[in-house]
Amino acid sequence: MAITYELIKKCSQTGARVGRIYTPHGVFDTPMFMPVGTQATVKAVSPDELKAMGASIVLSNTYHLYLRPGADLVAEAGGLHKFMKWDGGILTDSGGFQVFSLGPLRKITEEGVSFRSHIDGSKHFLSPEKAIEVQMALGADIIMAFDECVPYPAEFEYARASTERTTRWAERCQKAHTRKDQALFGIVQGGMYKDLRTKSAQDLVKMDFPGYAVGGLSVGEPKQLMYEMLEHTVPQLPHNKPRYLMGVGTPDCLVEGVMHGIDMFDCVFPTRVARNGTAMTSKGRLVVKNAQYARDFRPIDADCDCYTCRNFSRAYVRHLLKTEEIFGLRLTTIHNLHFLIHFMKKMRQAILDDRFLAFRQEFWAHYQSH
Amino acid sequence: MAITYELIKKCSQTGARVGRIYTPHGVFDTPMFMPVGTQATVKAVSPDELKAMGASIVLSNTYHLYLRPGADLVAEAGGLHKFMKWDGGILTDSGGFQVFSLGPLRKITEEGVSFRSHIDGSKHFLSPEKAIEVQMALGADIIMAFDECVPYPAEFEYARASTERTTRWAERCQKAHTRKDQALFGIVQGGMYKDLRTKSAQDLVKMDFPGYAVGGLSVGEPKQLMYEMLEHTVPQLPHNKPRYLMGVGTPDCLVEGVMHGIDMFDCVFPTRVARNGTAMTSKGRLVVKNAQYARDFRPIDADCDCYTCRNFSRAYVRHLLKTEEIFGLRLTTIHNLHFLIHFMKKMRQAILDDRFLAFRQEFWAHYQSH
Repeated sequence: MAITYELIKKCSQTGARVGRIYTPHGVFDTPMFMPVGTQATVKAVSPDELKAMGASIVLSNTYHLYLRPGADLVAEAGGLHKFMKWDGGILTDSGGFQVFSLGPLRKITEEGVSFRSHIDGSKHFLSPEKAIEVQMALGADIIMAFDECVPYPAEFEYARASTERTTRWAERCQKAHTRKDQALFGIVQGGMYKDLRTKSAQDLVKMDFPGYAVGGLSVGEPKQLMYEMLEHTVPQLPHNKPRYLMGVGTPDCLVEGVMHGIDMFDCVFPTRVARNGTAMTSKGRLVVKNAQYARDFRPIDADCDCYTCRNFSRAYVRHLLKTEEIFGLRLTTIHNLHFLIHFMKKMRQAILDDRFLAFRQEFWAHYQSH
Repeated sequence: MAITYELIKKCSQTGARVGRIYTPHGVFDTPMFMPVGTQATVKAVSPDELKAMGASIVLSNTYHLYLRPGADLVAEAGGLHKFMKWDGGILTDSGGFQVFSLGPLRKITEEGVSFRSHIDGSKHFLSPEKAIEVQMALGADIIMAFDECVPYPAEFEYARASTERTTRWAERCQKAHTRKDQALFGIVQGGMYKDLRTKSAQDLVKMDFPGYAVGGLSVGEPKQLMYEMLEHTVPQLPHNKPRYLMGVGTPDCLVEGVMHGIDMFDCVFPTRVARNGTAMTSKGRLVVKNAQYARDFRPIDADCDCYTCRNFSRAYVRHLLKTEEIFGLRLTTIHNLHFLIHFMKKMRQAILDDRFLAFRQEFWAHYQSH
C-alpha cells in the first residue's frame, strides 16, 4: 500500500477528525491544506519556502504537465519530486477537471475526452488509461481517477449519465494503475443529487480505493448546498481512508469541510488572490494594495509569524505590488499559504482538545466573507 | 566620515587593486559588483537570497523611489534599509541618469531638470539640492551627486558645457548634503574627451569627495573607447578613495575596469538578461530558454554552487521560463548575481596573489561575448 491512513482522534460532536497519512514522502497530519503547484511549481515560492511554512504535500496538474513539459520529460528527470526538487508529498489530479473546463475545445465519449490545447490548439486525447499512464510517469504519491466534474447546475439525467461514466472510468483507471508506490484515489461525483452521490460513493467504495475525493463541489453552487452534499456524502465513505474535498480553500469552507469529516483540501484561491494583492488574515481579507495601507508600517497580520509578517510592512508589500515587483507576489503568497496551513493546524489542535465546535463558533463570530 | 577606504594590495603590473570599504552597514571587499534594486527590491530575489550569494551592497534608485513610494514615506518607514529589510550597504544614484533618459519629457536648466513622470505624466523638478534632499531621506550609505550623463556621441561644446554644469551641481550637492552617516560621491563626466575628463576629475578631486564615480561610460560607445577613457581618467583620482564605474556589469568590462583600477560596479545587465532567460556562466552566456536545454538535466553551470545550480536542472529552469512561472525568474536571477559576485571574488584573489594579468589572459582566452 502506497499510503495508509491512521485515525488519531474523532470529534465527539461533529464529523471532524484528526489523522495521519503515511506516504513514501513523509507523514502528514490531517485535516490539511495542500498548496497548488499547477506547473510543477507553487507560483512565486520555492520548495524551501514551502517547507518553512509547514507545507507537507503539494498538488500538481496532469493536464498542464502533460502539455508542458510533457510527462516523458518529467519521467526522464526522475519524476516530479526530483524535477521540481520537492521531497515532500505530491498529489496530481487527473486532468479531468481541466479538459472539461475547456468548453467548446473538448468532446466527451465513453472512451475519453478529445480536446485542443489551450496553448497552441494542438489536438490531444485523454482517457482513463492515458490519465493514469501520465500520472504514473509523473510519479506523485497520490494520483486521482479520471472523472468528469459534473457542472452546476446540471439536469438529473446529465448528472446521472456522467456520474455512471465516471464510475466506469474509475474501474478502468484502477485496472490501468500498476505503480505500487503511489495511491490512486477514487472521486465521488453525482452533482447536487443525493441519490447519485450515494450511488457514486457506494460503487467506488466497493472498488476499495486507498482514499476518496469528493469532487464536483465548489463549482458555483450556494455554499449551503455544498455543505448539504458533504453532510450527505462523507458518512458513506470508509472511516479508515482519507477523504479529500477538491478545489476548496477559503477559511469558511475549510471549517465546514473539516466539520463534515474532510481530511484534505486544495485550492488555487490563496495563491491567486495573493498575486492580486489580497492577504488572508485571522480578521478577514486585507487588500494590501489599497491606498489606506500606503503608510501602514505594521505587518500584514500581527498574529502571523510567516516570513513576510516577520520582516516586512504593509507599506513595503503594497509598494512592491503597486510597482509590479515580483518579490511582492512572493511575499503575499507566502503569507496566504502560511495562514491557511496554520489555520488547519489550529483546527487539528481544536479537534485533539475536543473543542472543535467552540473553535467553529468562534470562527464564525469573527469571519468576514467579503 | 561615513565611509573610509583601505587599500589592501595593488597589482604590480596593472592598475588593479584590492581594498576594503568601511560603511555604517558593513565592510565590503573591493573590487565588487553591486546588484541593482531599482525600486527598493532587487527584482525577483529576497534580502536573504542576496546575503546568501554574498552581496554586500545594493544599488537603489532615487528617481524611481522619489516617484513611488516617495522619499517621505521611506523616511517615515525609518529609511531604505529598514523599509526593504536590508541591513547591508545601500548606494542610491542621484536620479540624474533616469531623468536625462526621459528625452522629450525633460528640460534642463542651470537650476535643475524639470520632467514628467514616465508613470502618470505628472510634473516634477529635480535639482542638485532636491536630489540630495531625497537621498538624505532615503538614507543610503553612499549617495551620488546629481549630474548629467553626457550622451554618446556628443559634440565637444555640448560635452564641455554639460560637464562644467555637472561640476557646479556637484558643489551645490556637497553644500546641500548634511547627513554625516552617509558618503556623497562625486561623478566624473567629460564625455569621450580626455581634456574634459581631466578637468572634471581635477575639479572634483579639489572638492575632496569620499569617493568618485566615473560616469558617462557604457552609454553606447565602442568598448575600446570606454577602456581608453578609463585608462586616462582613473589615474587622476586619489588612491585613497574608492572608484566606481557606473552601469557596467558584463564580465569583459568588469575585467577591464578592474585592470584600470575600478573598485565598484553596478549594472542591471545580470538581472535583466536573467529575466529574459539568459544565464551567465564561466563559459559564456547560456540561453536556458532554448529548445536544446529541454532535456538537459545538468545544472546551468557545473562550476557554480549557487542555490539554482545546487538544486535545479536546465530542463526545470527552462520549463519554468517557458511556462512564465515567477520562480524561474528568481532562479536565473540568483544564478547570474551569484556568478558575477563570485567572479569579482576570483578577481580579488588573483590580485592578492599578484596574478591578475594571468587571470585576465585566461579570461579572454575563453570569453565569448555573444
